Amino acid sequence: MSILVLGTVALDTVQTPYGFREKMLGGSAAHFSMAARLFTQVHLVAIIGKDFPARYVAFLEDRGIVLDSLIRSPGKTFHWEGAYAGDMNSAKTRKTELGVLLEFCPQVAGHQRKIKNVFLANVDPDLQARVLECMRKPRLVGLDSMNYWIHNKPKSLLRLFKKVDIFVANEQEARDLSAERNLLKAAKWLRKKGPAMVLIKKGEHGVLFYCDRFVFSIPAYPIDRVIDPTGAGDTFAGGFMGYLSTQKKLDGMAIKRALAFGTIAASFNVEAFGMERTSRLCLDDVRQRLDVFRRIVLF
Amino acid sequence: MSILVLGTVALDTVQTPYGFREKMLGGSAAHFSMAARLFTQVHLVAIIGKDFPARYVAFLEDRGIVLDSLIRSPGKTFHWEGAYAGDMNSAKTRKTELGVLLEFCPQVAGHQRKIKNVFLANVDPDLQARVLECMRKPRLVGLDSMNYWIHNKPKSLLRLFKKVDIFVANEQEARDLSAERNLLKAAKWLRKKGPAMVLIKKGEHGVLFYCDRFVFSIPAYPIDRVIDPTGAGDTFAGGFMGYLSTQKKLDGMAIKRALAFGTIAASFNVEAFGMERTSRLCLDDVRQRLDVFRRIVLF
Repeated sequence: MSILVLGTVALDTVQTPYGFREKMLGGSAAHFSMAARLFTQVHLVAIIGKDFPARYVAFLEDRGIVLDSLIRSPGKTFHWEGAYAGDMNSAKTRKTELGVLLEFCPQVAGHQRKIKNVFLANVDPDLQARVLECMRKPRLVGLDSMNYWIHNKPKSLLRLFKKVDIFVANEQEARDLSAERNLLKAAKWLRKKGPAMVLIKKGEHGVLFYCDRFVFSIPAYPIDRVIDPTGAGDTFAGGFMGYLSTQKKLDGMAIKRALAFGTIAASFNVEAFGMERTSRLCLDDVRQRLDVFRRIVLF
Repeated sequence: MSILVLGTVALDTVQTPYGFREKMLGGSAAHFSMAARLFTQVHLVAIIGKDFPARYVAFLEDRGIVLDSLIRSPGKTFHWEGAYAGDMNSAKTRKTELGVLLEFCPQVAGHQRKIKNVFLANVDPDLQARVLECMRKPRLVGLDSMNYWIHNKPKSLLRLFKKVDIFVANEQEARDLSAERNLLKAAKWLRKKGPAMVLIKKGEHGVLFYCDRFVFSIPAYPIDRVIDPTGAGDTFAGGFMGYLSTQKKLDGMAIKRALAFGTIAASFNVEAFGMERTSRLCLDDVRQRLDVFRRIVLF
């Protein structure tokens, strides 16, 4: 079963201790797609500007990403510029040029409205709601957001909570939303707001998954050369949702495997700038590292 | 095979969002013992003052801890006072009264010198070296330290590194010692300094274990009521070393199980003040929670 992702396609300028890249392909929906495509067909809902290089469009198409709902606007593509230092756990944003994102009014092509798996990556919650309304009876809906929306549109976000199955947050977002410092408490608080499943991403410390029937906690795959963590969270979500899209039964075992696939996809993401590594991945690469990971965490 | 632990026995005054305790039994060696005793006989090497309540001595003896090398001095027992708030990951120290620690010159009773497993909990590295010199051919030696010694006696500490099998550090200590932000790199750096095994404790995020042949990463057991984290690291070490002391072969599987036992012991520790929970633990309690933990992390 294929998956539809709403999010950003961006030009990222990134500085890390390992180097510098200018206006490389980035954005939540692009990173998500690069991982999810390993499991299923990905339909991308996003907006790009006139300055968006044709080679990036070809790059996405070559990897099987369906671009029927990618809006091409005369404005400028969303551009993010940031730098990482120290433990590489968070970026320092140097510049954010929203460009065409300011006029983004997502469209879902008719034939895509029956897609059963949906991921609403971080954009304005009102746009996320709009896309969700277009969809006919999705069976699995994931939602991501960020601090900005938590503080500026909490009501829209909480309304959306009632309509999604999985809410994905990072540690700080989960704590800010719930006003709970303990992550398990934060997850329980979020679960009460609607989503049956809550996934808290802890960066280099892995993920915590919560639902009424079980809790899972999985460490990150240990990497000693973190070149560029940009998009690791979206790559994780892509691997996680991509794998779940292929599973008929969403039981504990399927969810654990999905968490592991997400973890491994993210580990490849951080090993190179942007999508330099994930765009060349095949499922066998992921499975091989998954075998190593099993030995690292199993007891 | 029994285990000998060198460290502190303290009176702890602790404030957390869940309450307050004045001069309860604490200290690295005491917390370590409370977990290690579940697996093997524990011999404690430490010092207490005249003010140390007789009921605490009985409390340790009742739990089978051998106190033949516990020095009773006329001075005041080591007293630590601290408070936790927020995410409870680190304490704010309000007071440290070293008392008898200042005159501590550890003694190991003759019959204890042939004990095969040794844990040198955090005290002055010169005292750690002194105790280690007393021991006859130990087969497994663990070492813990803290930032204070890393900064004030780095040479003594690095000398000790050559003589121990396992170095246990928390995240910050590992980073400070190695000047590496990435924990896997930090572990590799520490390993090169001597200890064949390096264990990095990440608090609520679990532990990372490194040796030449494998890396293990295990999350913490998720706890939503962290009452008092004091001593969690020492309790972890006690469960870890205690279990390893019972194992003839220190292979990957034994180490993974030891990490899991340490994790579970620490999870009980944080659920109550001081040793209020761990002192009442039996191995069955630990095994039961270990079964739940297996389901949480296994995939």
